[in-house]
Amino acid sequence: MLRFHIAISLDGFVAGPNQSEENPIGVGGMALHEWVFDLAAWRTEHGLDGGEVNESTPVVQEVQSNVGAVIMGRNMFAPVRGPWSESPPWRGWWGDDPPFHAPVFVLTHHPRPPEEMDGGTTFVFVTDGIGSALEQARRAAGDRDVQISGGAGVIRQYLAAGLVDEFELHVVPILLGDGERLFDGLGPVRLERMRVIDAPGVTHMKFRVPR
Amino acid sequence: MLRFHIAISLDGFVAGPNQSEENPIGVGGMALHEWVFDLAAWRTEHGLDGGEVNESTPVVQEVQSNVGAVIMGRNMFAPVRGPWSESPPWRGWWGDDPPFHAPVFVLTHHPRPPEEMDGGTTFVFVTDGIGSALEQARRAAGDRDVQISGGAGVIRQYLAAGLVDEFELHVVPILLGDGERLFDGLGPVRLERMRVIDAPGVTHMKFRVPR
Repeated sequence: MLRFHIAISLDGFVAGPNQSEENPIGVGGMALHEWVFDLAAWRTEHGLDGGEVNESTPVVQEVQSNVGAVIMGRNMFAPVRGPWSESPPWRGWWGDDPPFHAPVFVLTHHPRPPEEMDGGTTFVFVTDGIGSALEQARRAAGDRDVQISGGAGVIRQYLAAGLVDEFELHVVPILLGDGERLFDGLGPVRLERMRVIDAPGVTHMKFRVPR
Repeated sequence: MLRFHIAISLDGFVAGPNQSEENPIGVGGMALHEWVFDLAAWRTEHGLDGGEVNESTPVVQEVQSNVGAVIMGRNMFAPVRGPWSESPPWRGWWGDDPPFHAPVFVLTHHPRPPEEMDGGTTFVFVTDGIGSALEQARRAAGDRDVQISGGAGVIRQYLAAGLVDEFELHVVPILLGDGERLFDGLGPVRLERMRVIDAPGVTHMKFRVPR
């Protein structure tokens, strides 16, 4: 199964305006993620102690579980563009032990050998498109799910291709007014709403895409 | 208090594309309203018998209650544009006894005397802008609320002017892909989420706009 989850403003933005290397989620975009940083379920996954337990906890645990492979866009993996010319090469934002613990297929136009990290994460660079990345990820995941980690552009490509099975939106009660929209020109398509969970600072809405 | 409620697709559209006189809510837009037509609470208000009771029932009853005056755009009141030259004049879509039972202030560029209907509805035509319409509506409503009935353009004007106190979205699990957006260039503003109710075919989300 191919799935994703993403935080989104009430007016449909997953990043604020003026995204840049210094501000990759755009002006005001951090407000979309405040609900998660204090959760013990998130902190543990990122090697931090302490944190809260609330209605979001089972949601965060669920989106992290049963993931056998991850797909990610180049712009989410690295701030640098073009060929992989850095030495030593960029190995992601997440240190030696990234929080994926699974193969991560990075979509790029520039070939590069895989990077094996600690804790079960291997970054594999895919240059022949989203279909190939999904095929490789499915093979690696076996019976488990493939998760699209982001960014929004990669999610939109998989949605437009009709390849996504399920997704969860973390709807934050804020109007950003401008920025990057998740849904743009997708549909018409009726979704099956699986469940809604109201939690502090966020409403979790999970959907299935009918075949 | 000034408030509104509106049905909206998961991708933020309150009407489908290609709105026309024959299809005022655009292609596919009727899918936003299917959840309401079978409800007894809605049918009674529109003079129809029977219907269902479900989790949406208290929501529909609440949005209809304590309304002392209504504000409406010209395009919602009438399909005709320009001066009020018809004879007999257009008196709305709703027959002799419209479901408002209160003064309805219709925003228009073309002056016209009020139209008193049965059941307590009077259409009052306001030519000097949204501030004047709100002032007149508040005076008419007294201790009760003023509801913006629509369309989306009028709601956006009141939101942009910072005049809305509360609103409720009826979020329908469909991607329309194109059409008229409710939120466009509004914000950044943090909202206070009042409550979320999950019902058949729709999720009701109520918000307060902080001052």
